Amino acid sequence: MAPVASGVVPIIPINRDLDTPLHRQVYAGFRDAILSGGLTPGQQVPSSRALATVLGISRFPVLDAYSQLSAEGYFESRVGAGTFVAASLGNHRKQAVRSVEKSAGTRTVSRRVSLFPHFQDPPWRFGLGAFAVHQPAIDQFPFGVWSKLVARHSRSPRVRAFHHIDPLGLRPFREAICAYLSTSRAVRCDADQIMVVSGSQQALDITARVLLNPGDRVWMEEPCYGLVRSILAGSGCQIVSVPVDDEGMRVSDGMKKAGKARAAFVTPSHHYPLGVTMSISRRLQLLEWAMRSSAWIVEDDYDSEFRFESQPIASLQGLDPARRVIYIGTFSKVLFPSLRLGYIVIPPDLVEHFMAVRFAMDIFPPYLFQEVLTDFMSAGHFVRHIRRMRTLYKARRMALVESLREEFGGWLEIHGAEAGMHLAVTLPEGHRDTEIAVRAANEKLWLYPLSPCWAASRPRHGFILGFGNTPEEKMRTEVTRLHKILSA
Amino acid sequence: MAPVASGVVPIIPINRDLDTPLHRQVYAGFRDAILSGGLTPGQQVPSSRALATVLGISRFPVLDAYSQLSAEGYFESRVGAGTFVAASLGNHRKQAVRSVEKSAGTRTVSRRVSLFPHFQDPPWRFGLGAFAVHQPAIDQFPFGVWSKLVARHSRSPRVRAFHHIDPLGLRPFREAICAYLSTSRAVRCDADQIMVVSGSQQALDITARVLLNPGDRVWMEEPCYGLVRSILAGSGCQIVSVPVDDEGMRVSDGMKKAGKARAAFVTPSHHYPLGVTMSISRRLQLLEWAMRSSAWIVEDDYDSEFRFESQPIASLQGLDPARRVIYIGTFSKVLFPSLRLGYIVIPPDLVEHFMAVRFAMDIFPPYLFQEVLTDFMSAGHFVRHIRRMRTLYKARRMALVESLREEFGGWLEIHGAEAGMHLAVTLPEGHRDTEIAVRAANEKLWLYPLSPCWAASRPRHGFILGFGNTPEEKMRTEVTRLHKILSA
Repeated sequence: MAPVASGVVPIIPINRDLDTPLHRQVYAGFRDAILSGGLTPGQQVPSSRALATVLGISRFPVLDAYSQLSAEGYFESRVGAGTFVAASLGNHRKQAVRSVEKSAGTRTVSRRVSLFPHFQDPPWRFGLGAFAVHQPAIDQFPFGVWSKLVARHSRSPRVRAFHHIDPLGLRPFREAICAYLSTSRAVRCDADQIMVVSGSQQALDITARVLLNPGDRVWMEEPCYGLVRSILAGSGCQIVSVPVDDEGMRVSDGMKKAGKARAAFVTPSHHYPLGVTMSISRRLQLLEWAMRSSAWIVEDDYDSEFRFESQPIASLQGLDPARRVIYIGTFSKVLFPSLRLGYIVIPPDLVEHFMAVRFAMDIFPPYLFQEVLTDFMSAGHFVRHIRRMRTLYKARRMALVESLREEFGGWLEIHGAEAGMHLAVTLPEGHRDTEIAVRAANEKLWLYPLSPCWAASRPRHGFILGFGNTPEEKMRTEVTRLHKILSA
Repeated sequence: MAPVASGVVPIIPINRDLDTPLHRQVYAGFRDAILSGGLTPGQQVPSSRALATVLGISRFPVLDAYSQLSAEGYFESRVGAGTFVAASLGNHRKQAVRSVEKSAGTRTVSRRVSLFPHFQDPPWRFGLGAFAVHQPAIDQFPFGVWSKLVARHSRSPRVRAFHHIDPLGLRPFREAICAYLSTSRAVRCDADQIMVVSGSQQALDITARVLLNPGDRVWMEEPCYGLVRSILAGSGCQIVSVPVDDEGMRVSDGMKKAGKARAAFVTPSHHYPLGVTMSISRRLQLLEWAMRSSAWIVEDDYDSEFRFESQPIASLQGLDPARRVIYIGTFSKVLFPSLRLGYIVIPPDLVEHFMAVRFAMDIFPPYLFQEVLTDFMSAGHFVRHIRRMRTLYKARRMALVESLREEFGGWLEIHGAEAGMHLAVTLPEGHRDTEIAVRAANEKLWLYPLSPCWAASRPRHGFILGFGNTPEEKMRTEVTRLHKILSA
């Protein structure tokens, strides 16, 4: 568009075949002309009537465009004189244009960003199928009952759902969680200590923000769940890797390495990735250390509902009279991961700190699934589903173990208690798990390599094998596929 | 329960009238006895058969309890000799018990916690009714259409919903957001730049974590939205309050106070709380400053869909060739707040940093509403709803302004552009807004006081009046109530 003298109609590219409405085309024509320097500040623009006539369109879109251009400050009206390109645009426009032509400047991000590991999407991570980790038997989920509840709450949501914004979450939901935890997990709590979050990961993040300073030393299990490491690293903490043996974290090693640590992050019910259950003696030792050192314990109880040879192990939280345990649970394993719901059980004196951080972080959790789950739990569907899944996963685990023994004999070592939705196997010396996992992913077999779980010491190579989503009768076939890939 | 000699049956309180199953009662009896010192480490316990006989119950619950106590490490079996209280419990139990009796130690939290303002629940905050802020016309929401989509996705969720975990969110949803932003908000982006989050607040939090270091100077509007201040304060930033006038943030004041600031947080479309629209000349000035100073601009476009006298103002992001703007939007106002969905438009070179932080914070957003909204948007319901609400809110705003003028004349000053779901009024000198708000809350009228929005300079007293949830025909009555309270 060439510069126009006062009253001369500018050439605006109008195209009736476009989806863009006419007034947006007129608007965009002027805007681009002004920003590119085609029209100059202070210059008069034609009257809307004149422009409409020349463009052969109705006056309404022109009026709409002019009003928009005025509202945004591109145009200004002078009473009795007409409409002009705003004089005030003069300097800034030129400088802005000049600046773009120069370098874009430095683009600095925060120091802490470099502490977070880059997000990676390794080929095995998000596959759906045999051995994929964190995948429940989704086809066994009672979607019939579930979607009826979802539909009911979605059709006529209670006013409450839109009303009281509570950073802890909906109270009836917290009460249902509390009742469940007291009877099933021997957690000692009341509903005021429970905060609903989007899963264990948000729970870990909030907890780290409330409890830890950059530079603080924190015990972490070795090997451990990678995303705990991300959070602690991102918080600038000094990670103290404490080895795990058949009884869980070796507390005395932790005390030797860093007796004055600020916190310990543990998975005592079912260690990730090795599947060990922490012994009662180690539990008491850990609690005692925490009390003596004024340290915190963060208990991540991610899949403790599924224990096959006995009742679920009672939580560390329930054993702790000093209330130094922050207990974290999730619905990702019991229901499904994309629900994004979990909870924190907070020591009473820390609740207000957790609320302050949570409110600033994301205010409050979404309402719908809180309502749905409250009903799902109080009608007994939740406990029933857990019971069914316990039987199912027990059979699937047994089928996996038997198939592994038959296919591999003692060549693969099997680790872990009879629990959860995964077990770990280790390879003989000389095999590299990540290389095999890449190869397996090419064959659409999703193997989580074990070695990345070690941070500080020589890793063992092997795999975390999920058995949650593979029917018993298909297990042997999948293990045979695994055998072929390992023998290749 | 008294200590028992080997083979002597302990007295376990069994009560068949309790809901607690028998095996839990047996388990709890032993556990409490061991932890309290009633049973001592190394002591033999009776055979399950003997105990069952004495208690007059079946042997099964006793076996269940014994297996649980063994799994948790309270019991140990010695082949051929029987079952014993685990000898290894000896020291830790005693020390644990002694420690509880002593002090609970210090209970230190992180330094940054003190930077977050305490969560407060002032009486006006979460009331539902006339003048409550952030409350859309929820009764006008098309719950019929909506719940059909929700039910469909909930009954037979696509495998994809459980499958690929993407820290940016579901791709089809990001594509729908992208299409909407390009046409309606003149945002320049593609789907790979969009991250789905739980609302503006999480967007601000992630952005602050990616961009800002403790000690960094950051421009903030004065007055401003309180929760932006919480995030910046919690990040340890040095907040530089830059006054807002009729053209928006006074960029030249910011340059005088802190020309080298790292970032500016702004609400250019509709300033919160005053409702000003930032002029194009200020926009260009801000962009130019950001380019010259290598600073970032965070544009919070929280309710820009609702603009009444012209089309929505084009975004700052769309004007910025240097890609220094992080654009934040939310569905809280357009749909409803308890949905918890919003998005960030990220400059391409920063996407991987945002993903790293997001993945560590909470992995990925919940699936259901992403799927539902994708359909809701592509079927045209979204744009239709916005259009209806624009007409509705325009009428409600007009009714509010007229009623205020009729009731108060010039006594109350009305601020803000014809936009959004709220406007601000200021009181004559000598009136204290928070005191009035407390009084009003007693009468169930929810007034957000204006003065807490100022951080660094003398505040103005007044109220932020939401008009989103009050029907036109009820507006005058509510304003009369307001008048009564102000005159009291």
